[in-house]
Order: sequence, then C-alpha cells, then structure tokens
Amino acid sequence: MGLIAQPLTAEGFAPFGRVLDAAGSAPVAVNQGRALRRNLATFSGCDARFVLARYDVVSSSLPLDIPFLERHALSDQSFVPLESAVALIVVAPTAPDGAPALARARAFIAGPQTPFLYAAGTWHAPLFALGAGGAFLMGMHESGTPADCDTCELTTPLRVESTSWDAGIG
Amino acid sequence: MGLIAQPLTAEGFAPFGRVLDAAGSAPVAVNQGRALRRNLATFSGCDARFVLARYDVVSSSLPLDIPFLERHALSDQSFVPLESAVALIVVAPTAPDGAPALARARAFIAGPQTPFLYAAGTWHAPLFALGAGGAFLMGMHESGTPADCDTCELTTPLRVESTSWDAGIG
Repeated sequence: MGLIAQPLTAEGFAPFGRVLDAAGSAPVAVNQGRALRRNLATFSGCDARFVLARYDVVSSSLPLDIPFLERHALSDQSFVPLESAVALIVVAPTAPDGAPALARARAFIAGPQTPFLYAAGTWHAPLFALGAGGAFLMGMHESGTPADCDTCELTTPLRVESTSWDAGIG
Repeated sequence: MGLIAQPLTAEGFAPFGRVLDAAGSAPVAVNQGRALRRNLATFSGCDARFVLARYDVVSSSLPLDIPFLERHALSDQSFVPLESAVALIVVAPTAPDGAPALARARAFIAGPQTPFLYAAGTWHAPLFALGAGGAFLMGMHESGTPADCDTCELTTPLRVESTSWDAGIG
C-alpha cells in the first residue's frame, strides 16, 4: 500500500497521539518571572504522570542573590538545554532537620549541550539562565499536589558572586 | 553566604544529581541502523522508569518501504526534534484482532520544532528522519521487559511514495 506523507497537524494526528506544541499549552510565567513554561506532554503509564515542558528563560547575570530553595520529593527533575542556553545551578545537601545545609551549598554552570538532573529531594534554586538566556526542556513526574514542590525561604540569601568559568557569559 | 559558580562536572554534581551526558551512556545503534541512541536519564518516582534519550538519526529519502510496525503498550512515547530535524511518521489504527489496520495507515511529516507523541499502544513505524537527518529527544516509560515493544512484520511493506509538503526536504 502506498502512502503520501502529509504535514503533521494536531487534527490529522489525533487518532494516533498528539502534536506537542498544539493549542492549549499556553505559556505560564514561572521562576519568579524569569521564564515562560509551556507543557509539551504528559505521559500515561505511571501513577504520577510524567511531564515534559519547555522553559524559555530570560537572562540573569552575576552576582545574584538566591532568596529561597526548592525540592521535588516525588521525582528526579531534569533540564536539557536547547541550542546555546547556559544554566546556573545552586544546590545544597539536606541537613539532619530536613532543611538545606547552606554551609555546604554549591554553585555550578552547565554549559551549552549539558543536560542535567536533580536527584529527587535535592534542594536547589529555581532555574537561572546566564548569558543571553535561552530555552530548556524540563522533565519530571508531577502529581499535581503540593507534595510536588517544597520550598525553603532563606533568612540570609545565598549569593552567587561570580564564576570560575570564563565562557564569555554575563 | 557567597558562592563561586563552577563548571558543571559529573563528579562535582554527583551528591545532588547527574550530568546527563556523563560517561556510561554509550551510543547504541537502533532503528535498523539509521539512528544512534544515547540514554540521557532515567527518572525515579514511578514503577516503570521514565527514560529520556537522545537519538541521532541518519537521513532517509522518499520513496521508502516500511517492513514492520511497532507499538508500546505500557507508555506514550514522544520525540522532540532538536535544531532542524524533520521526522517521517507512519501510523495505523488497531484492527479488532489487534493487528495494525493497514488500509487506514497514514503518513505525516513533522517539521523542525514540531515535537510529537504516540499514544500508548499505537502502531507506528520506527523513526525516520528526512532531509539531512538530525537529532531528537525521545521520552517514554520503559519496564525493561519484552512488554515494552510489540512488533508486527508486514506481509506487504507499506510504501511512502512522496510527500504533499514541499519543504525542500529529500
């Protein structure tokens, strides 16, 4: 049987699946207004649905203050930079009382083409993009309940002073 | 507390998560040799782990024959084209006996920047990339058992003759 391949449309493909940038995935401002998030897909096959989202993140520059950290107890969370996006990562171990151990906090720069994943339950700053900003794919399980995200306000903000990596970023 | 942001390395980030292109994600040839697959991540938080993988797919051109179809009963499966990759999609509804209903097969072209998702259980051809080929992110739940993928050999191959979409692709 011969087929003629057609342009993919949401309507034509509906019996088989979904076109992920279809209408309905309206952008939502996240990360304190630095990023626009668009959900690309949720996946069947799991109690806590898996979500794949696109984040378009505005530029931030160093030094910057981190007023709070967050963690996702139910799931690992990954970010895959698209094109030339550069992420600033701030993480902290968990202290015996469950709060972030700020004295052991660390900051990292994930260069272009460097996807990364926060282990479930790891305290981390919301996403920041350095340089020109850029887009990331975000993937994690989300239950749609408050259990998805804990936050911890910091009495004294963590400050990222600078970077040891000279990559021509802001 | 002030921090100096460091380049992200697998070793430095290990207490907090994973750098997804770390050593160990060796490329595996898939899709009848057309593509190299690298697993970027598996996610905790679900009975059937969620897998995020990168596919680097060689170029195919029309017309082409599809000798078999496959389906993933346990999970939706999505592909997100990176950069300018263009996918050829071939799908078929399921007949009452469970086999693909070939008389109602359809072919689609997903242009650059068009991520898509196969609904769980949908018969589809393995991935083909038109034009210059290119890279895709693949996401799905995988149990690691034969239940992840059914295949159906076609007595007469499906042939994709041409495309109705003139996008300068091969």
